[in-house]
Amino acid sequence: MKEKFMGLLEQNKLGQLRQEIVNMNTVDIAQLLEELDKKYLLIVFRILPKEISADVFSYVSYDEQRYIIESITDKEAEHIISELFLDDTIDFLEEMPSNVVKKVLKNTDEETRRLINQFLQYPDESAGSIMTIEYVDLKKEMTIKEALDHIKKTGVDKETIDTCYVIGKNRILEGTISIRKIILSDEMQLIKDVMSTDVIYAKTFDDQETIADIFKKYDFISMPIVDKEKRLVGIVTIDDVVDIIEQENTEDLQKMAAMQPSEEEYLRTNVFSLAKNRIMWLLILMISATFTGNIIRKFEDVLQSVVVLASFIPMLMDTGGNAGSQSSTLIIRGLALGEIELKDILKVLWKEFRVSLIVAVVLSVVNFLRVYYLEGAEFAISVTVCLSLFATVILAKVVGGVLPIIAKKLKLDPAIMAGPLITTIVDALALLLYFAMATTFLNI
Amino acid sequence: MKEKFMGLLEQNKLGQLRQEIVNMNTVDIAQLLEELDKKYLLIVFRILPKEISADVFSYVSYDEQRYIIESITDKEAEHIISELFLDDTIDFLEEMPSNVVKKVLKNTDEETRRLINQFLQYPDESAGSIMTIEYVDLKKEMTIKEALDHIKKTGVDKETIDTCYVIGKNRILEGTISIRKIILSDEMQLIKDVMSTDVIYAKTFDDQETIADIFKKYDFISMPIVDKEKRLVGIVTIDDVVDIIEQENTEDLQKMAAMQPSEEEYLRTNVFSLAKNRIMWLLILMISATFTGNIIRKFEDVLQSVVVLASFIPMLMDTGGNAGSQSSTLIIRGLALGEIELKDILKVLWKEFRVSLIVAVVLSVVNFLRVYYLEGAEFAISVTVCLSLFATVILAKVVGGVLPIIAKKLKLDPAIMAGPLITTIVDALALLLYFAMATTFLNI
Repeated sequence: MKEKFMGLLEQNKLGQLRQEIVNMNTVDIAQLLEELDKKYLLIVFRILPKEISADVFSYVSYDEQRYIIESITDKEAEHIISELFLDDTIDFLEEMPSNVVKKVLKNTDEETRRLINQFLQYPDESAGSIMTIEYVDLKKEMTIKEALDHIKKTGVDKETIDTCYVIGKNRILEGTISIRKIILSDEMQLIKDVMSTDVIYAKTFDDQETIADIFKKYDFISMPIVDKEKRLVGIVTIDDVVDIIEQENTEDLQKMAAMQPSEEEYLRTNVFSLAKNRIMWLLILMISATFTGNIIRKFEDVLQSVVVLASFIPMLMDTGGNAGSQSSTLIIRGLALGEIELKDILKVLWKEFRVSLIVAVVLSVVNFLRVYYLEGAEFAISVTVCLSLFATVILAKVVGGVLPIIAKKLKLDPAIMAGPLITTIVDALALLLYFAMATTFLNI
Repeated sequence: MKEKFMGLLEQNKLGQLRQEIVNMNTVDIAQLLEELDKKYLLIVFRILPKEISADVFSYVSYDEQRYIIESITDKEAEHIISELFLDDTIDFLEEMPSNVVKKVLKNTDEETRRLINQFLQYPDESAGSIMTIEYVDLKKEMTIKEALDHIKKTGVDKETIDTCYVIGKNRILEGTISIRKIILSDEMQLIKDVMSTDVIYAKTFDDQETIADIFKKYDFISMPIVDKEKRLVGIVTIDDVVDIIEQENTEDLQKMAAMQPSEEEYLRTNVFSLAKNRIMWLLILMISATFTGNIIRKFEDVLQSVVVLASFIPMLMDTGGNAGSQSSTLIIRGLALGEIELKDILKVLWKEFRVSLIVAVVLSVVNFLRVYYLEGAEFAISVTVCLSLFATVILAKVVGGVLPIIAKKLKLDPAIMAGPLITTIVDALALLLYFAMATTFLNI
């Protein structure tokens, strides 16, 4: 694909190239632009038909957007910005250096400039920061026919016409009506008689995660956003919600792997930011692992007399950590999806206890067979190791299951309670148990 | 909310209850039904207006669906099934015991029964298993007016009318047209002249993850599914894709936490299934931790002479494991989102190497200060511990960054290469390094 276009470019067959490109999906055109050498980027962008160039622009990545805006004329920039949906304009401006922002603002009309400045002020990750203004608004006194005419007149510039929003005095949101309902209704009916008044909406300062949860619950395609006075100010559409869902999942994963969450793509993040996001948690966990070390030091004489005990420490610690992470991961995910609630803490405790009993029995028996028969360890040592393993697995699963719920109760993020922190807690508990049993069973 | 409805139910004020309910969103009605006592469930379900009862039914969970179908008459069941979208019918039938399936099939017409049987045969997680048949199909020779009339006649039963699908001879998919375009076009134009022919579609046997990736890339609301002969057989809609995205994310998380993936909700899964999903990986990892134990046993004499060395093992192992998981998590996520590709392996290697250098220097210096000054360890021991830590962090990050890519190259699932497996590999490497340095620096 790319080769074909490169060939046409090198032979300067721009007419033929244009023919090929206009039949492509805009997302694919954007991808092609990203793959081309910079020197061809502008040539291809400029031969795009005017009606799709803004759409293609919204899909190329920030580096290319910046390069395009910096290279084109003011008039060309004006055209792109006037055609872009406002949410795409905001997304892109937030990532641009000030010279690009200035060039963009200089080439927009006053009204758009005012809106851009207003939208840029909504906090990151709020409904306001992801909404757009290209929706269809109808008046409740309109007839279906008038509504259809209104849509025909204005619909071409809207991000979605699937749901139209019905506003009353002072732009107060009063209802919604789907395009399906409009098409299927009698032309002379009034909007207010067919619209749905049970409107589910969000406020500009609501968190984007809340918005995503509402979309998931009600299977929405779009949703109205209102200000404090319930005036309609924008809509959020499902394509942005899908991005939010992936972004929130990525952040949860990063927290569970003991990193500060970051929105940046890995390959586009510089080495120092990557290191910065990782160091703090590694330091915290390294220092807390000192406690584990202190426990070993306290029992140095036990190790001195039966040094083989040291060789089972990695197995105990790893198995405990893994068992705990399994439980915490399931609970954290359940909390995130709303499948588990705070009030379920006792149910989780009881469930994890029973699961851990089964798991602990199987692991201990297999381990005993291995240690006693295969490795030929002493009987007392084998028993010590297996009982410690048994207790560790149960503790790990109960702690791993309950800690995320407690974290959420304390308004902490359950995800940071996952893997590494559980591991550190379980390590210490496992070693204490191990040495306690060793001193008891081995008479040291 | 629930209390109010319970009150009305207990006083048998069903008329008033119905008034309250009809203004609610169907998802909220379904949630209310789930919260009610079983004895009231059927009463409330039966007072629902006929036109929304099937919709509510599709949103209650499987337990309640089963209870409802088992309790209602054949005629009532027939009505629900005829009103349900086919994908919801399939979802629900797949979870039901055979007596419920029989009752449902007995009460459907022949054509629906044939479709149900056909759809139940598509493999789990294939496009066929999530698609539905309630789409609008248009003929390319139709005028816009004819198309609109067709939509008015049939649209009320369709899952979406936002995009209509244009078919030619033998139902071959030839184009798509959005409802927006239909409304905005001149009534006398022909569909074939305004439809978009660059149709992106998938096949019935394509994996649902592939479908989700296409939706994310192109910001689709719906997408056509065709059979081997490119005949249109169904569509997939965004609400199901959102569920797939969450499900795939859950599965990845479970694999990364060393569990067999499962679709079941935690609280609805029984203890034995939960244990079964966890035991296998714990066993594998427990036994592979034996190697780590063997390394310690091989260096028993080293530990015997400087037993304090044992107390640093947990810190080394934990920090190595955490450092490795950080890298593997970022890479696995990047691969899943398509941000990192196989060809980026050298870029990742180089990036992780530089990040790990920064991280390793910071951690080693802090650790040296702590071990040498705070804990008052011998100089040679402090140096041994810190150099081992330094090398471990670098190894852990490089292995953690590269292993998931290698796994993907070998067509293995990168997610199973995460956390636990990396930890086990890094543990062994860390101990080998540690004892090698100890024997060198401490002259043992």
